[in-house]
Amino acid sequence: MSLGEFELIHRCFQRATPKGVVAVGIGDDCAVLQPTPGCQWLVSTDMLVEGRHFLSTVEPDRLGHKALAVNLSDLAACGATPKAFFLALALPRADAAWCDAFAQGLFALADAHGIVLAGGDTTAGPLNVSVTVMGEVPTGQALLRSGARVGDEVWVSGSLGDARLALEVFRGRLALPGEAFAQVRRAMECPQPRVALGLALRRLATSAIDVSDGFLGDLGHVLKSSNVGATIRADALPRSALLAAQSTGVQRLCTLTGGDDYELVFTAPSQDHAAVVALGQSLGVRLTAVGQIDPEPGLRLTDAQGRLFDSGLQSFDHFKSP
Amino acid sequence: MSLGEFELIHRCFQRATPKGVVAVGIGDDCAVLQPTPGCQWLVSTDMLVEGRHFLSTVEPDRLGHKALAVNLSDLAACGATPKAFFLALALPRADAAWCDAFAQGLFALADAHGIVLAGGDTTAGPLNVSVTVMGEVPTGQALLRSGARVGDEVWVSGSLGDARLALEVFRGRLALPGEAFAQVRRAMECPQPRVALGLALRRLATSAIDVSDGFLGDLGHVLKSSNVGATIRADALPRSALLAAQSTGVQRLCTLTGGDDYELVFTAPSQDHAAVVALGQSLGVRLTAVGQIDPEPGLRLTDAQGRLFDSGLQSFDHFKSP
Repeated sequence: MSLGEFELIHRCFQRATPKGVVAVGIGDDCAVLQPTPGCQWLVSTDMLVEGRHFLSTVEPDRLGHKALAVNLSDLAACGATPKAFFLALALPRADAAWCDAFAQGLFALADAHGIVLAGGDTTAGPLNVSVTVMGEVPTGQALLRSGARVGDEVWVSGSLGDARLALEVFRGRLALPGEAFAQVRRAMECPQPRVALGLALRRLATSAIDVSDGFLGDLGHVLKSSNVGATIRADALPRSALLAAQSTGVQRLCTLTGGDDYELVFTAPSQDHAAVVALGQSLGVRLTAVGQIDPEPGLRLTDAQGRLFDSGLQSFDHFKSP
Repeated sequence: MSLGEFELIHRCFQRATPKGVVAVGIGDDCAVLQPTPGCQWLVSTDMLVEGRHFLSTVEPDRLGHKALAVNLSDLAACGATPKAFFLALALPRADAAWCDAFAQGLFALADAHGIVLAGGDTTAGPLNVSVTVMGEVPTGQALLRSGARVGDEVWVSGSLGDARLALEVFRGRLALPGEAFAQVRRAMECPQPRVALGLALRRLATSAIDVSDGFLGDLGHVLKSSNVGATIRADALPRSALLAAQSTGVQRLCTLTGGDDYELVFTAPSQDHAAVVALGQSLGVRLTAVGQIDPEPGLRLTDAQGRLFDSGLQSFDHFKSP
């Protein structure tokens, strides 16, 4: 079944707008948003392209989930409360069944985080999903990349590398049994943004970033913005039992350079170690200390024996990576 | 010359962020924006796809201009002051010369309207330009589609139809001499958003919309949102001398259904006719009264003799139109 542009918007994306931050939602030239007094707005945008950010085999509900999840993850990394989002969608054709499933995945995650679709744009074109999210923090309290201090510990939430492990299987470089593949595929296609953790970290962390392009590259952004360096215990990076069953080379590839995990990497003063551990326990999120911030610029890796080594690995670049 | 993703962002899009609304700009997970107390945020997003919104022959500086212009036009239609924008860009390859020219067109228009690029995303993929703009209005003063009242006059800024005339030439259905073609091509590729007019209309207009999909369809949105109808003098629709030299059929096609003009269509009480005329004169913008709002739903067209006629024309739909 093929729909026109306005029918499609109405059928799949127009819902009653709850009272709150969105004074005027879908259906005017602009959405009208009501800021909370004393707060700043945090805004991020991420564009997902077939073959770069998702495979043509992805189910549309998972794509709807992921398009919002990667943006919510940016709000989480800044400690922001999700408020409203905008969806620009280019579709090869207006396929109602596809859009219904896409919208189902999108809205399930939106509802879980209390964020409202306030506007957007649909057009015909090569499949492209571009989401812009907006959230709030009390003025001056945004978690930034620039706040890491010498002596801070470096922490990672959840586990790293399963999304990359799935990609290696899709590429035919590795094989996994069906159940194991389903698990890592879910990690790749249905990342869970760490929104509650980000909010709680406003009181504890000195800096934060989400792992979208890979741990090495993303932590590198923090170090550069903060004018510091770090020494990381490579083998301390948290990984799933599935990934831990792979060769050391695959484990390092996936944990150090794998993108698409959407875990948080953050720094916190070492004297707050116990508070961070307690926070992880209260939220039910695994939090792992993996190294510390140094005055010397650059990122150094140590092995299980504490010896420095060169991973020879680089992080993901959309124009250079294979 | 081919660049990596982060080099490209740095080279083409990262500029010093002026003090003001953007507390933290490009280079963190989110931008941090500082709302003006007593104001609401207006947000709109438009996605431009090759072959639908622009032709492959467009110069990159004009594409940069247009991608922001169509979004500024949405702020104008709501009477908002432009504040910040976000750019998501998918490029077949990271071509530095192309990006430099694109950025030049983009920033020339941004600077003219005092709007700041606060963040974005670049990726490899089929050419796609998705811009999200944010502006402000004093709380409750946004111009909406829903405010048209029976007895209001319907006004149009500038002239309609030149962008569609250019498209007809590109499609080989019409021919124009070189200078004339350059003029209508400029209308299509370099629309000028009516930002100053939109701001001034907050005090005068009861409703407004910008003409992106065509006069019939866009005014139709206003009528539907306002639960009213309208009678429009089709031959009163403002058009350029170039378009006025075409056949009546071409003139009606272009003025009634041509998209991409980015003029404002607005309604204002008839007793404010002289005030609207005076506003147009003070801004140097042609403003033309083209009809009035009726209680009877629907949009009626009259010819030069005041007789009702059926244009047989429809407005643009991205999934249905040729």
